[in-house]
Amino acid sequence: MAVYTDVPDDELRVFLADYALGEPISCKGIAEGVENSNYLLRTERGTYILTLYEKRVDPADLPFFLALLDHLAGKGVACPTPIHAKDGTALRQLCGRPAAIVSFLDGMWPRRIEAQHCTAIGGALAQLHRAADDFGSTRANALSLEGWRKLYQSCAARADEIAPGLAQELGEELDTLTRLWPKTLPAGVIHADLFPDNVFFRGSAVSGLIDFYFACNDFLAYDIAICLNAWCFEADRSFNVTKAKLLLRNYRATRELTREEMDALPILARGSALRFLLTRLYDRLNHPPGALVKPKDPLEYRQKLRFHRGITRASAYGLE
Amino acid sequence: MAVYTDVPDDELRVFLADYALGEPISCKGIAEGVENSNYLLRTERGTYILTLYEKRVDPADLPFFLALLDHLAGKGVACPTPIHAKDGTALRQLCGRPAAIVSFLDGMWPRRIEAQHCTAIGGALAQLHRAADDFGSTRANALSLEGWRKLYQSCAARADEIAPGLAQELGEELDTLTRLWPKTLPAGVIHADLFPDNVFFRGSAVSGLIDFYFACNDFLAYDIAICLNAWCFEADRSFNVTKAKLLLRNYRATRELTREEMDALPILARGSALRFLLTRLYDRLNHPPGALVKPKDPLEYRQKLRFHRGITRASAYGLE
Repeated sequence: MAVYTDVPDDELRVFLADYALGEPISCKGIAEGVENSNYLLRTERGTYILTLYEKRVDPADLPFFLALLDHLAGKGVACPTPIHAKDGTALRQLCGRPAAIVSFLDGMWPRRIEAQHCTAIGGALAQLHRAADDFGSTRANALSLEGWRKLYQSCAARADEIAPGLAQELGEELDTLTRLWPKTLPAGVIHADLFPDNVFFRGSAVSGLIDFYFACNDFLAYDIAICLNAWCFEADRSFNVTKAKLLLRNYRATRELTREEMDALPILARGSALRFLLTRLYDRLNHPPGALVKPKDPLEYRQKLRFHRGITRASAYGLE
Repeated sequence: MAVYTDVPDDELRVFLADYALGEPISCKGIAEGVENSNYLLRTERGTYILTLYEKRVDPADLPFFLALLDHLAGKGVACPTPIHAKDGTALRQLCGRPAAIVSFLDGMWPRRIEAQHCTAIGGALAQLHRAADDFGSTRANALSLEGWRKLYQSCAARADEIAPGLAQELGEELDTLTRLWPKTLPAGVIHADLFPDNVFFRGSAVSGLIDFYFACNDFLAYDIAICLNAWCFEADRSFNVTKAKLLLRNYRATRELTREEMDALPILARGSALRFLLTRLYDRLNHPPGALVKPKDPLEYRQKLRFHRGITRASAYGLE
C-alpha cells in the first residue's frame, strides 16, 4: 500500500488534455496495490483509476495486460476497462512513468469469506476463462516450475531461518512437482492471482475483478487450484470442503472440466501452494527492516501444501 | 501517507446502518494524512471521507474539531462537513477507534504555488477567521511558546547532528521570542496548519480547506504568519514579496488588520518558522530508519527564520 510517484496537479492537467475526460476534479492516491502507484481520479466525465507503473512491472508486459483488459471488458467481464486517449492509445506516460487510466469498479473485497463468495468466484473464474478463449496475445507464466526453481535457489540457503527443515521440504516438493506436473491440459489466459483482495462484491455478486498483472498463459485448472487455496481455507487453516464444492460446481456450470483436469487438481493445488509459499518466503527474507508493509506469513502456505500432499483423489475437493 | 486500521466490509456495513447514507458502494484507503486512517467512501447517497482517528490524536479534542467543522460549514466555509448519524452524533466508533464521516471536497492541492493561489488563500483565511468569530468552544494552542520550549528541550542535545550550532541558535531564538511575543492581539480560532497540501483548488478558486486537527485559539495574525511561511517562499527558499502582498491585501479585503497586528508580523513570522523548525527537527531525530515517509527538512525553516529575523518593519512583507 503506497504511492511511489506523486502526480502534481499541473502535470495531471496536461496529461488529461490528451483524453476526452474533461477537467480533473480530484485525484487521491490510494493505499492499494504494492507494485504500482494508484490514484482515484474524478473528472467531469466520471470516476477512474489512474495507475503509474513502477519498477517491479516490466514495461514490455503492459501492452499485453491492457489489451487483455480491453478484450475481457468487451466480452462483459467485470474488469477495469482501459480508457483510450484521443489518439487511440491506452498506455501513455506521466511523471516519467508508463501510465494508464482504467474505469473505476464499484464494490468491496470481502474480508470474511462466506460460502456465497465461493459460489460467485467459481462462476466468475469460468466466465473469465471463456471470455479470454479467443484473446490473441500470449504471455508465459514466469511463476511456474522454472520460476519456482529460481526462487527456491535464491532462498534455499536461508529458508531454515523461517522454519527448520523448510529448505529440504521445498527442494523435495519441487522435485516431485517437476516429475508429476501435467504435460497437457486445456490451457489459455489465467488470472493467476485471484485472491479475495482482487475481487469486489456488491452483496453476494461479483462486481469487479482487478489486478491482472500476473495474468499469463497456463493450464486453466491451475487458476482453479489457486482459487481453492485463496478462498477455501478457513482462518484456522482448515480446508472447507463445502466452499470448494460450491466453487467447483459453479465453475463447471459455465465451463465443464475434463477428466484429466479433475485428476490433476491435487498436483496443481500443490504447485499453487508452493508458488505462494516461495514468493512469500522470498519477500520475508528480503524485507527491509522497519518497512510499513508487513510481509505475509509463508508458513500459511506450507500448511496448505501439506494438506494437498495428503490428497490422492480430486473428490476430496468436493468434486461431484 | 498510510492506512493504519483496515476497515472490513462487514464492519463498515454495520457502521453505516446507523447513518442515512444508504449501502456502501466502495471504500478505498487513501494515502493522505500521516496521523489518521482516511478512506474515500462511496455510498448510494454520495461520496465522503471516513476517518479513523489513530493514536497521535487526543480523543478529548475530537468534539472540538467536529463542532468547529459543523460551525464553519454552516457559515459557508468550504471545509469538510461532519455527517451526523441518525441519532444526531458525528463522532462514533469503528474498528475500536473513534471515527467520523465528513463530506468529500472537490479539488486538488497545488504543487507549484502561483500568485493567484496566494491571493485566494488570503481571502479564504480571512473568511475562516470571520466565520469562526462566534464559535463557542476553545482549545489552547499546544504548539505555542510553552510547547516550543518542551520540543526544544527534547531535541537540544541532538540538534547539532542536523547542523552544527543549531541547538544554540534555537535556544537564543526561543529566549528572544519569549521576551518579545505579543501579549494582546485580536484572537480567535486559527487553522494553524494551512499549508498548500491542506488547500484544494479548482482553477484559481479555493474549493476546500482540510485538516483542522491543529485548529486552536490564538492570535489571528499568527495564522497569517504561518501562511506567509507556507505560501510565499520559492523552491529556492527566497521570499516572494509579490505573493505576500497579494495574500495580505486579499486578507484585509475581508478582515482589516489592526496597527498592532501589522507591527507584530515579523515576530509572529519568526515564531511560526520556529514552530515548524522544531516539529520537523523532532520528527527527523525520532524518525524510524527505513520508514516509508521521508521526514521534511528542518533546515528549510531555519532559513525562513533567519529571513524574518532580518525584518524590522512589516512593510517588508508588502503590507500597504
